Amino acid sequence: MRPVDLAAFIERLAQVSGEAILPFFRTQLSIVDKGDGRFDPVTEADRAAETVIRRHIRQAFPTHGVLGEEFETEQPDAEYLWVIDPIDGTRAFICGLPVWGTLIGLMQGGNPVMGVMHQPYTGELFFGDGGQAKMKGPRGAREMHASRCENLSDAHLMTTDPRLFKGDEAAGYARVESEVRLARYGTDCYAYAMLASGQVDLVIESGLKPYDIVALIPIIEGAGGIITTWDGKSAKDGGRVVAAATPALHKAALDKLNG
Amino acid sequence: MRPVDLAAFIERLAQVSGEAILPFFRTQLSIVDKGDGRFDPVTEADRAAETVIRRHIRQAFPTHGVLGEEFETEQPDAEYLWVIDPIDGTRAFICGLPVWGTLIGLMQGGNPVMGVMHQPYTGELFFGDGGQAKMKGPRGAREMHASRCENLSDAHLMTTDPRLFKGDEAAGYARVESEVRLARYGTDCYAYAMLASGQVDLVIESGLKPYDIVALIPIIEGAGGIITTWDGKSAKDGGRVVAAATPALHKAALDKLNG
Repeated sequence: MRPVDLAAFIERLAQVSGEAILPFFRTQLSIVDKGDGRFDPVTEADRAAETVIRRHIRQAFPTHGVLGEEFETEQPDAEYLWVIDPIDGTRAFICGLPVWGTLIGLMQGGNPVMGVMHQPYTGELFFGDGGQAKMKGPRGAREMHASRCENLSDAHLMTTDPRLFKGDEAAGYARVESEVRLARYGTDCYAYAMLASGQVDLVIESGLKPYDIVALIPIIEGAGGIITTWDGKSAKDGGRVVAAATPALHKAALDKLNG
Repeated sequence: MRPVDLAAFIERLAQVSGEAILPFFRTQLSIVDKGDGRFDPVTEADRAAETVIRRHIRQAFPTHGVLGEEFETEQPDAEYLWVIDPIDGTRAFICGLPVWGTLIGLMQGGNPVMGVMHQPYTGELFFGDGGQAKMKGPRGAREMHASRCENLSDAHLMTTDPRLFKGDEAAGYARVESEVRLARYGTDCYAYAMLASGQVDLVIESGLKPYDIVALIPIIEGAGGIITTWDGKSAKDGGRVVAAATPALHKAALDKLNG
């Protein structure tokens, strides 16, 4: 299987999942019916998208496995394992903000080798394969490169929600935030796309699942960035994650996090 | 001057300001050169947009006044006063997130009568004139209506950054946040557009300038929502602001804020 075929296929998956999700975005039904359990647009959209993604994978690559947020894992021991989260950034989705994304990653032999983050409302697709990263959007297509930022005092930091850090995690995060130039909340997967784009320099999170992060690893690494757990191991299993634009910034962040 | 002419004119202002701003969005120059003072894309974009907006107003309506963030007020005592913030959501802009907006409001005899929030990257335009509110975006055009949410326990709340509340403000905000269903940070003007769209139910902020809020008042009110200061007065001078989807929710929030 040639890499170019996979890249075209993963883009096709992003397209069909976006078509499944968008009818549920900004429907207002979440507001009218919320609390009574009758209709939850984000769950409906999640399931519709994961169903269509799994169907396309099964048809194109019947020997591949699939790990997703909504349904049971298929063929977890396959050489190729797709790791998907149809809507990463549930709160953003519920609130109508276009900073959620669809994550579709591919692992080969246990290692993330390709991934996309797709934002169907803005029409943005962020792609990486560990060697390169590129994006398409309403203003055209371009390669992505992480910034050259090496110091916390120059860094733009993103995290989804500082209230998600527990105990020692919160203290470690606070030590980093107190040193950076600017900290921005509420970003989920969009943070990693902006790090790959060179717009921010550091992303710190905890409590991630594999499907929250596998697709993003080849994008960050393809853009020249570094992504690991807080103790410097592969981020592919999720947990506590640090992504940085440069090795020096990554080391500075780890030193503060581990205090 | 017929209202329809003004509505078309304000949309034209949004268009020309977007064309002035977008070349500076996601340039990466903010990263490469930051800290040395040579180039600040958000300030450059702010000034370019406000310059072109002021020029269009001066040509079309030479007797109108203009209050903007970047330059001195022109004819502040005019019957019609334009109130503009080319980039509301500077942090979002710097970080590459498409949740900043251009605010263009019109006051007549001291009262906000028309406003737009424009997001040129996503191509979204949110318009209101106090009587109605509507939006255009990548998925088409539609009327906007605030939700019917009446209780804090059902409410989706947005604020730009909880760290911006000082002293008693922080305690009051915390009382509200502890009661709501969901709180989302990092939203600036986008929060008000989502309230008008029925996606969120409550927005609470402090420290606003008139140009942060005047354009949004006719949008919120046009969508059937309520917007005042924390002590129930007109929000047109900025300061501490509460916007709510319904009178009952507005009262519940004020009671907690002033607790």
